[in-house]
Amino acid sequence: MATQQTIWIYDTTLRDGAQREGLSLSLEDKLRIARELDRLGIPFIEGGWPGANPKDVQFFWQIKEEPLTQAEVVAFCSTRRPGKSAADDSMLQAVLAAGTQWITLFGKSWDLQVTEGLQTTLEENLAMIQDTIEFFRSQGRQVIYDAEHWFDGYKQNPEYALKTLEAAIVGGAEWLVLCDTNGGTLPHEVGAIVREVNQFVNNLTPAAPKIGIHTHNDSGTAVANALAAVIEGARMVQGTINGYGERCGNANLCTLMPNLQLKLGYECVQPRQLAQLSEISRLISEVVNLAPDDHAPYVGLSAFAHKGGIHVSAVERNPLTYEHVQPTQVGNRRRIVISDQSGLSNVLAKARSFGIDLDKQDPTCRQILQHLKTLENQGYQFEAAEASFELLMRKALGQRPEFFTIKDFHIHCDLIRSDVDIWNSQSLATIKVTVNGRDILEAAEGNGPVSALDAALRKGLMNFYPEIAALHLTDYKVRILDGRAGTSAKTRVLVESSNGHQRWTTVGVSENIIEASYQAVVEGLEYGLMLQSQAQTVLT
Amino acid sequence: MATQQTIWIYDTTLRDGAQREGLSLSLEDKLRIARELDRLGIPFIEGGWPGANPKDVQFFWQIKEEPLTQAEVVAFCSTRRPGKSAADDSMLQAVLAAGTQWITLFGKSWDLQVTEGLQTTLEENLAMIQDTIEFFRSQGRQVIYDAEHWFDGYKQNPEYALKTLEAAIVGGAEWLVLCDTNGGTLPHEVGAIVREVNQFVNNLTPAAPKIGIHTHNDSGTAVANALAAVIEGARMVQGTINGYGERCGNANLCTLMPNLQLKLGYECVQPRQLAQLSEISRLISEVVNLAPDDHAPYVGLSAFAHKGGIHVSAVERNPLTYEHVQPTQVGNRRRIVISDQSGLSNVLAKARSFGIDLDKQDPTCRQILQHLKTLENQGYQFEAAEASFELLMRKALGQRPEFFTIKDFHIHCDLIRSDVDIWNSQSLATIKVTVNGRDILEAAEGNGPVSALDAALRKGLMNFYPEIAALHLTDYKVRILDGRAGTSAKTRVLVESSNGHQRWTTVGVSENIIEASYQAVVEGLEYGLMLQSQAQTVLT
Repeated sequence: MATQQTIWIYDTTLRDGAQREGLSLSLEDKLRIARELDRLGIPFIEGGWPGANPKDVQFFWQIKEEPLTQAEVVAFCSTRRPGKSAADDSMLQAVLAAGTQWITLFGKSWDLQVTEGLQTTLEENLAMIQDTIEFFRSQGRQVIYDAEHWFDGYKQNPEYALKTLEAAIVGGAEWLVLCDTNGGTLPHEVGAIVREVNQFVNNLTPAAPKIGIHTHNDSGTAVANALAAVIEGARMVQGTINGYGERCGNANLCTLMPNLQLKLGYECVQPRQLAQLSEISRLISEVVNLAPDDHAPYVGLSAFAHKGGIHVSAVERNPLTYEHVQPTQVGNRRRIVISDQSGLSNVLAKARSFGIDLDKQDPTCRQILQHLKTLENQGYQFEAAEASFELLMRKALGQRPEFFTIKDFHIHCDLIRSDVDIWNSQSLATIKVTVNGRDILEAAEGNGPVSALDAALRKGLMNFYPEIAALHLTDYKVRILDGRAGTSAKTRVLVESSNGHQRWTTVGVSENIIEASYQAVVEGLEYGLMLQSQAQTVLT
Repeated sequence: MATQQTIWIYDTTLRDGAQREGLSLSLEDKLRIARELDRLGIPFIEGGWPGANPKDVQFFWQIKEEPLTQAEVVAFCSTRRPGKSAADDSMLQAVLAAGTQWITLFGKSWDLQVTEGLQTTLEENLAMIQDTIEFFRSQGRQVIYDAEHWFDGYKQNPEYALKTLEAAIVGGAEWLVLCDTNGGTLPHEVGAIVREVNQFVNNLTPAAPKIGIHTHNDSGTAVANALAAVIEGARMVQGTINGYGERCGNANLCTLMPNLQLKLGYECVQPRQLAQLSEISRLISEVVNLAPDDHAPYVGLSAFAHKGGIHVSAVERNPLTYEHVQPTQVGNRRRIVISDQSGLSNVLAKARSFGIDLDKQDPTCRQILQHLKTLENQGYQFEAAEASFELLMRKALGQRPEFFTIKDFHIHCDLIRSDVDIWNSQSLATIKVTVNGRDILEAAEGNGPVSALDAALRKGLMNFYPEIAALHLTDYKVRILDGRAGTSAKTRVLVESSNGHQRWTTVGVSENIIEASYQAVVEGLEYGLMLQSQAQTVLT
């Protein structure tokens, strides 16, 4: 039941989100994302522009085969062409053919865009808006009108901008969505303009369409702009998951939904759906193959991370003092970060989060802290390498499984100049590793020493642990710890690994970059194997 | 000259920014960042908490040795301990010893934090604020008072919260900075509360301290919150470069400064300084070894990127229709994603900065641009590696001196496990290098492959260029460019070198980390030799 407090969330990840540089969606990706958005309870999902490309046409076909449970899939298109009737415009026929109940139509609000962009008259633009909406209404469809470049247009020529909205109202649009297409408007301006539009529209007709808002992040205020509009009466909010979108992105729904629902008391989705937000945000980032933003509000891995001893005990005593909402409300969790400021309470809190039972009185607890501090003095950093810390802790407690033992390895690299500026390189690694009491000797080549080592180790372990094929390295970072020592300085390597569902980070430190890389790569594999053996234990 | 439109920017990248999970700053990093902030024209730079750790103490020492040109370096600390006099508090003595003119002092605003966190009385907290400020004032220092947890505290108990500000005013603070420590407050609340505080403070005394704002991004509105405060009269804005900070980060100064200056007409830095913003943002992300956010407002690589044909011609006809500000105002550039063009003026500007005479009509100019683009496609990045860019440019112009030519090299590394967890490693490099027509073969050992290579090369060159002894590597950073390729991914190596007076950075890219390191190390040496030969030319 919709009330005064209901906000209709409109997701445009599949269209506007896909405009992000470096993001491209397959048909399968689009279908998968639509289902996740449906599970999240989002009422409107924009699927694409039917007819613009074969993928969008197929998307609407496929989604009809396996309909969503509650969401409306919406087709997107522009107004009819200038000087043509709507019924004769083949573009609009293609949109009808997608078979959606709802259609989002965008039109020009800014006089400059009409005369320079469309190269038609201001009058014809009004007719195009009204005609196209009337045409869709005559076919039994419902229409959301997106007023493109609304804020720029309104600031330049408010009279004309308001006439375009009037045309949309006369045509029969059910929603008027004000778009900040360039993302250049600031929240106080958005608030003031939405207030004026709301007054204008309500003075015009007793059965006025509702107002929506569509913002971009070019000024870093997309979320705040949408909030300002809602406070002034907008009831539809358009945005994308993780804020994907052209240039600096669209309004991030993963930030907006909790702000609206947990802080301002509006209703967007059910609380149990909101509690899936972090999972769905990360899942969609996997689908589009972009690293999740660990520092994203509400859903980021670091959003509820705490450092430092006093701080940590304060959070545990009274979470309100350092957490603005409960992490579980958005499906996230509190994390106690291990750093050189840690005390015993950090170690205990960490152990709990790893599912390790550790008592404060247990002398091992103090040993772990001692060991941690020694390693940190050597340059290890566990803040960003929780997997290495868990392995260290399990080892101290005799709970670290021994999947394999490496006896030794050799690496040989050649770089030979064959011609001016053309280098041939070869890297060969041999490794001796013991698995289940058996010694295995393997050799492999690679692009460089670390990849050769990784390849040799995987070759050796594959027969024993075929699941190793699913593990892969997703990030690799090196820095030296003391610049003065030059190329002899200690290096710290951070390796991020993944099994497709989870990500974890391990660390290695040595004066030898290969040794440091070796430590981090090997612990990354060990941790992955441990996760998989734990999963199997649960299943059996 | 400060006017009503002046906003004092206060950077806390070195303290609050460093709280970001995964970010850790060496002393060299901190000094480098401070100099960049100074160049950007930021008036207040918070250096750290003197006494909290040896690194922060050293930072304040070092910065006195080589003072900044215009920025005030500020020391940060808390109020005196409960039940102790300020003069007897050793923590405050350590802060004075840092020798800064300005000190930022944070105190508790929220009654709950006083009784539960500090475990003292509400009265004692007021005395702690007033005493500490009076103590610093008596030592001739100027004080910025940071009201921690201001917004949460004010919402719970406004009377008490205002008393803490009164204590700071009586003590003699020159700024009252309202902090949204948890980042949970939304812009409309920030605006309303700042308005009330402003009225309260101005009713209290005719010579009231000015108001500042410090926001965090937990609700995705850190920038908008700071803007709302400025609109209600705040005149100091605290934040960090690239929004680094704990959890979801602090207010991003790279977004705030252009918003304030280009959109709201305030004055933060000089226009020519703002035009360096993109460069400095990227440079600092390199210093802290974090990938720059390509989608960041104003400074991101994609912030002014345009896709698609019509769009592109529309942008070129009338940039206003798709760009909210001119990219050059923030030192960024328009990018046409499909067919990138221009950049010629960049090359010319760079040449001038290197002291190279280059004419726009010279075909070499276009060749350099072409070569640059090819290399950038391969993953090279010259923003933080100007020395490599200068070498590239001089080579194209036939002005690059040939000090030596490397014919080939071999590296052999062994890691052998001699005992549990004890590894012996050996790295041996042999190199064949031609100097002045003579072939030299040298071999050397090192802690790792890169140091072995460096040692062998230096051995070979020492007889010809004894000045090479003065050159040393001061920083070394590695990042992979494509996570999906795992250990076979391309790596980019940045090497910073120094001759004791100057520093320069070179870059190498390869799938083989050793080859990438080799490129950067060798160019670092070449550039150092070139600088020294130029200096000799000038002297003779």
